Amino acid sequence: MGKQEWGFKENHELHAAAAFTIRNILEAIMGNIDEKRSGKPMIHLGHDLPYDITNDNVFVTAGANHAIEVVLTVLARPGANILFPRPNYPVYEARARFSQLEVRHFDLLPEKGWEVDLDGVKSLADSKTVAIVLINAGNPCRNVFTFDHMKKVQFFNCGNSKRTWEILVIADEVYAHQVFGEKPFIPMGVLGDIAPVLTLGSLSKRWNVPGWRFGWIAINDPTIILQLNMSYQVAGSLKSCLTISADPPIVIQGAIPRVIKSTPKSFFLNTNKLLKESADMFFEKVKEIPLVACPHKPEGSMFAMVKLNIPAFEDVVDDTDFCMKLAKEECMIVFPGDAVCLKNWVRVSIASEPKVLEDAIGRMKAFCLKHAKHQ
Amino acid sequence: MGKQEWGFKENHELHAAAAFTIRNILEAIMGNIDEKRSGKPMIHLGHDLPYDITNDNVFVTAGANHAIEVVLTVLARPGANILFPRPNYPVYEARARFSQLEVRHFDLLPEKGWEVDLDGVKSLADSKTVAIVLINAGNPCRNVFTFDHMKKVQFFNCGNSKRTWEILVIADEVYAHQVFGEKPFIPMGVLGDIAPVLTLGSLSKRWNVPGWRFGWIAINDPTIILQLNMSYQVAGSLKSCLTISADPPIVIQGAIPRVIKSTPKSFFLNTNKLLKESADMFFEKVKEIPLVACPHKPEGSMFAMVKLNIPAFEDVVDDTDFCMKLAKEECMIVFPGDAVCLKNWVRVSIASEPKVLEDAIGRMKAFCLKHAKHQ
Repeated sequence: MGKQEWGFKENHELHAAAAFTIRNILEAIMGNIDEKRSGKPMIHLGHDLPYDITNDNVFVTAGANHAIEVVLTVLARPGANILFPRPNYPVYEARARFSQLEVRHFDLLPEKGWEVDLDGVKSLADSKTVAIVLINAGNPCRNVFTFDHMKKVQFFNCGNSKRTWEILVIADEVYAHQVFGEKPFIPMGVLGDIAPVLTLGSLSKRWNVPGWRFGWIAINDPTIILQLNMSYQVAGSLKSCLTISADPPIVIQGAIPRVIKSTPKSFFLNTNKLLKESADMFFEKVKEIPLVACPHKPEGSMFAMVKLNIPAFEDVVDDTDFCMKLAKEECMIVFPGDAVCLKNWVRVSIASEPKVLEDAIGRMKAFCLKHAKHQ
Repeated sequence: MGKQEWGFKENHELHAAAAFTIRNILEAIMGNIDEKRSGKPMIHLGHDLPYDITNDNVFVTAGANHAIEVVLTVLARPGANILFPRPNYPVYEARARFSQLEVRHFDLLPEKGWEVDLDGVKSLADSKTVAIVLINAGNPCRNVFTFDHMKKVQFFNCGNSKRTWEILVIADEVYAHQVFGEKPFIPMGVLGDIAPVLTLGSLSKRWNVPGWRFGWIAINDPTIILQLNMSYQVAGSLKSCLTISADPPIVIQGAIPRVIKSTPKSFFLNTNKLLKESADMFFEKVKEIPLVACPHKPEGSMFAMVKLNIPAFEDVVDDTDFCMKLAKEECMIVFPGDAVCLKNWVRVSIASEPKVLEDAIGRMKAFCLKHAKHQ
């Protein structure tokens, strides 16, 4: 096991860039300060440090999108590839494209509750694979992975007798707390002893207010003896990348302890109850709409993936055409699946009031009836 | 003039990456929405757009550091170089290094009130120069440029009969409002008709609270007929880069109108009065310290650059050594000039209470007396 290899390599450009920052230089000078020994209160005419990271394996980011940007920037290098789910959250696609990381898509299987198509992963991965992205609870699929399924994926990631390379897991758990189905949410980090996991999280989703710009990257690598060098390089490269990025807003950092302390548990329970009611209602009502199908009952987060039966439409050529015509005729917006890498599906946000959702389902039904092929 | 060339070239990687974002796709679908014609209120089950940019030439960023990151990311391309002042704000150095932009330093001249060494600029610039950075009010030099000096720089940037290329100006005006000397602050944008200017700004500095993460990039290019293609490409590339970045925090965006409206003018006047008092006091008192000199009376922002007479020290080899020993012996932090590209100077924050500053000057004096060469 000690000879296992990783697609990840240390990012030296980041270290070189980070050397030019105020933070790194101040850290060196601060190391010489000892108030007790000098008998003087410290005077700081250098600059203020906004916060200290006390845990070497947790990195605070300016939101989850920033966490994605940082992780993909750190992983990118010439010739590297990364495994993304299909469908996917589009920020991954945009940042990988910009960082010139080769993207390889494996399928999530709707008929299996959007589980990972592990055979697909096996056929795509190679020694240049820097990481695999797993989003749980799903975005946009709203599924929750079972523990057994997660273990299967991890046992593949950690390698086997036929190969020497392992795959780092990027576990996007931004919707960890918006889970309301029968399966419990299990963080991938608990399986970090099989293959190391970078967990991405975000605070604001739990409060239903986006844009706090407060997220994190946590390295889950309990077998640090085995992975010491790799773990050190990942942590060091993440630190360098964050050193040349903006911190989360100070005002938000200051407000967080109070926000957490003063929010009653009932608030979260109620939010998930409302999400579950919307999801259940949508899942039942959507069956009334001809030419579309929602194959898996939602278990988490706030989207539904709906499949379009394109050949049964008279004059709708694909998902984008569906969205454009629905906007024009019914004054209603849903998101084309193509943009989340799943052609001829649409992504529907169900985080709306039941009345609005019912109105929406009525409009989609009218639209589909109008555009259905004549028998 | 119509044949003038620019070091800047359009950044196609950014456009390709931005195509993968929710925002761009939603914009296309939103174009089909017409509530009046359809007679229905709009239902938006796509996603929420956090804000609209109404002015095509102003781009909101997650703070000024993010503005620097975005501008340098957009400008970077193989073989390009950029002109930075010496001394400089370190974030420019870090981001240019990471984006693999070649950095060329021109001097700011302390004996001329930290004016730009224009002869130096002329010897450095060439057809691969994508931009020149000018920080006014100065950081860390605390100077304010005169209108005459700014015009001289602009007339060089706009090119002449001997060459076909012009230089884009990045005018960092983050400290525009912290000016308290005899010279008025003049935004470089008013000279944008000579050579186009990208103005970088930030909100929080005026309120003395860092970390709001709200800044902007403004394109000042009034002669758009002349520069239409270039202006369009710069704006388009900035937009693509911002599309794949995080927005400023929504909470801050929401609070800004009230913060601006409810802050009395007296608050700003008082802040600058206090800064001026600290600056005047520091400038007088620092003369009492042997082996150091502050050659230019501060006019803005909140730092002072202090020159060290290194040969006159017994056992201090350079500015970093000075900072390390000062921290150890006097429990006091100042910032090495080397880190802002000005070897054997130190940068001192004067945004402290007069009592603290007096204590600090006393400690620096004791330190210098102790380490001075014996006669």
